[in-house]
Amino acid sequence: MQKHDQDYIRRKNKKIVFQIIRSESPISRADIARTTKMSPTTISRIVQELIDQGFVKEMELQSMSTPGRRAILLELDQTSVLTVGIELDKSSFKIGIVDFEGRIIHIRNFKREAGISPDESMVQISQELQTIIEQQKIDSNKIIGIGIGIPGLVNLENGVVILSAQLGWNDIDVVAKMKVLTGFEVAIDNELKVKALAEYSYGGVKGTTRTAIIGFGSGVGSALVIDGKIYRGDTNSAGEIGHTIVDPNGVQCECGKVGCLQTYIAENSLIIEANKVTPISSLDELFEKHQEGQLWANTIIDRAIAYIGITIANVISVYNPGTVVVSGNLVEKYAEIRSTIEQNELQKYVWKPLQNSYRLVVSSLGSNGVVIGASLLAQNEFLNIEI
Amino acid sequence: MQKHDQDYIRRKNKKIVFQIIRSESPISRADIARTTKMSPTTISRIVQELIDQGFVKEMELQSMSTPGRRAILLELDQTSVLTVGIELDKSSFKIGIVDFEGRIIHIRNFKREAGISPDESMVQISQELQTIIEQQKIDSNKIIGIGIGIPGLVNLENGVVILSAQLGWNDIDVVAKMKVLTGFEVAIDNELKVKALAEYSYGGVKGTTRTAIIGFGSGVGSALVIDGKIYRGDTNSAGEIGHTIVDPNGVQCECGKVGCLQTYIAENSLIIEANKVTPISSLDELFEKHQEGQLWANTIIDRAIAYIGITIANVISVYNPGTVVVSGNLVEKYAEIRSTIEQNELQKYVWKPLQNSYRLVVSSLGSNGVVIGASLLAQNEFLNIEI
Repeated sequence: MQKHDQDYIRRKNKKIVFQIIRSESPISRADIARTTKMSPTTISRIVQELIDQGFVKEMELQSMSTPGRRAILLELDQTSVLTVGIELDKSSFKIGIVDFEGRIIHIRNFKREAGISPDESMVQISQELQTIIEQQKIDSNKIIGIGIGIPGLVNLENGVVILSAQLGWNDIDVVAKMKVLTGFEVAIDNELKVKALAEYSYGGVKGTTRTAIIGFGSGVGSALVIDGKIYRGDTNSAGEIGHTIVDPNGVQCECGKVGCLQTYIAENSLIIEANKVTPISSLDELFEKHQEGQLWANTIIDRAIAYIGITIANVISVYNPGTVVVSGNLVEKYAEIRSTIEQNELQKYVWKPLQNSYRLVVSSLGSNGVVIGASLLAQNEFLNIEI
Repeated sequence: MQKHDQDYIRRKNKKIVFQIIRSESPISRADIARTTKMSPTTISRIVQELIDQGFVKEMELQSMSTPGRRAILLELDQTSVLTVGIELDKSSFKIGIVDFEGRIIHIRNFKREAGISPDESMVQISQELQTIIEQQKIDSNKIIGIGIGIPGLVNLENGVVILSAQLGWNDIDVVAKMKVLTGFEVAIDNELKVKALAEYSYGGVKGTTRTAIIGFGSGVGSALVIDGKIYRGDTNSAGEIGHTIVDPNGVQCECGKVGCLQTYIAENSLIIEANKVTPISSLDELFEKHQEGQLWANTIIDRAIAYIGITIANVISVYNPGTVVVSGNLVEKYAEIRSTIEQNELQKYVWKPLQNSYRLVVSSLGSNGVVIGASLLAQNEFLNIEI
């Protein structure tokens, strides 16, 4: 047995024990030993290390069946580690302080000025974060880092935002700048990828094997989670379905191509289409017109519904996921759209042999999913349980 | 250190050494030790086990630089293990006998009668295999199993073909029946998935990290290989892009839906379209009409070329692969199509931020890819190097 093999197994075992406490908490040492098939001695040693590091704490439970008998169970010390999750969008951003178990301690929503430069935007975010830490009396020593979720393409290796059409950002060195501005460690990723992480870790699809999450919002995107890991592809761009072509004779897309999926369902595209008829500025207004029975509004919404069905069907064909999570205003906010999709469109568009291959769920974390996922990203990046 | 950890490491190390000999052959014991960072003693023990099992043999090389000095190198004993690879298609099937290193020793192509039943088809295949073994004097003791590649959906767990529209097969228990008919172990998988395996192991994309293979043939399909493993999805149907919808107002597909991708590029679809104008029976005839300058033939082929470009672009967007392998008659046989795609369509259809994210290659195993891949499937399933 080589030394590096021993170290490898030690680290692997520690991570396994930590993950079990995290997901099964509260749990006893004996149950961890049973689950992992490791010896009680090994478990005791590892647990003691985790307690000494402050990640895990003991809780005492009174046995219900045998009064007087007490059991010592283990749980995460949820106050030991904090992360900051930031969601950055076209016209707003959110800052959340999140505990060790993914619970939001404090969250605030801010307006993002139109036309603001990347640098100004980052300064504003840093200042607001500082204010939150002071006002909420957050112990900044417990903050291990900041995670940011952004609509667009991110280079994970250097933390540069390669392209965000929605923010109008090109090659912006977010991680380096935010580190300087805040003094914290910083990680950044695509918003849908961090949201997928959150849904997998804390949402309704916890522990599934293969899950696709599809976001219908200001753009359209997807992410595939395989055994808890995000499938990223070669340049962290896997799942960018917004620019798959679904009609070569279709509408012009802002990317320069024609007939991209997002031209039929991105919120902005729907508003642009509507403005060809009458001036409106939001999805809600479009839905009002639809409820008034305006035919043109029905046409736009019916087409969006059809393409949402097609999107889900196509994602099922390429990824063959066991679970599909849909998120975003169009499917979360308007119950009518959701029921039409579930009752009609999926039967119509999903390939017959795959009709029973998946379970469709609506995002259970809702509008805080990106903040929680961004926090989790920071936890994954900056939490070091390996002494 | 637990007993099961030790066994795990022993098996892991043996596999690592075996894979290195397989891919780097000929290689010396010393070089294996250097590459793996395992001790020379460990390497010697593992190599001896592999020699005793008959999988590896020594070869003696005369040193060029120091005459008289000889080096003992290791290589696979390519005659020690044989597998049978079978490709089953609508109107033909192929049987290949393949050695340990993926080389075809013997291969034959057979006509498959139209309207033949699954049982008759399997009997015919078994009889032809028996004839090949006898005529070619193959030592059947060396055959560790049969692999079959089939166009359609396969349940990997029980070896049942769930659906093959091209063969007209539904719920056919191929593995069980072929075992009885041949007496060999049998494994079956989707043809494109085994082809991807072959391209990854022996083809031009050997050792790539993320590769998508797209087949343009009697249907349209894709497969994603991540670190040498095929991404299968929940029901082994990942990559079934032939039934993704690319035009909700499009042509009727045999699956019952409308506007499926394969209605624009599957060989059969092109022939059906052509027959609306003039009776033709093959792709070659369609290309003759195209070369004669018949406008309708140009229209069909131009549209197919556009959709091939769109298919590649969409696969790049969803899988973000480093390498894309295209295969099938349309791209392998007609150089004109290939060059139009490479020079025009990809610039037109691939999303700009991904234009430089991939390398496009044409299948290097050509028409034998499925047979080699099916053999490899049998090797993976039935080769047991773990004493």
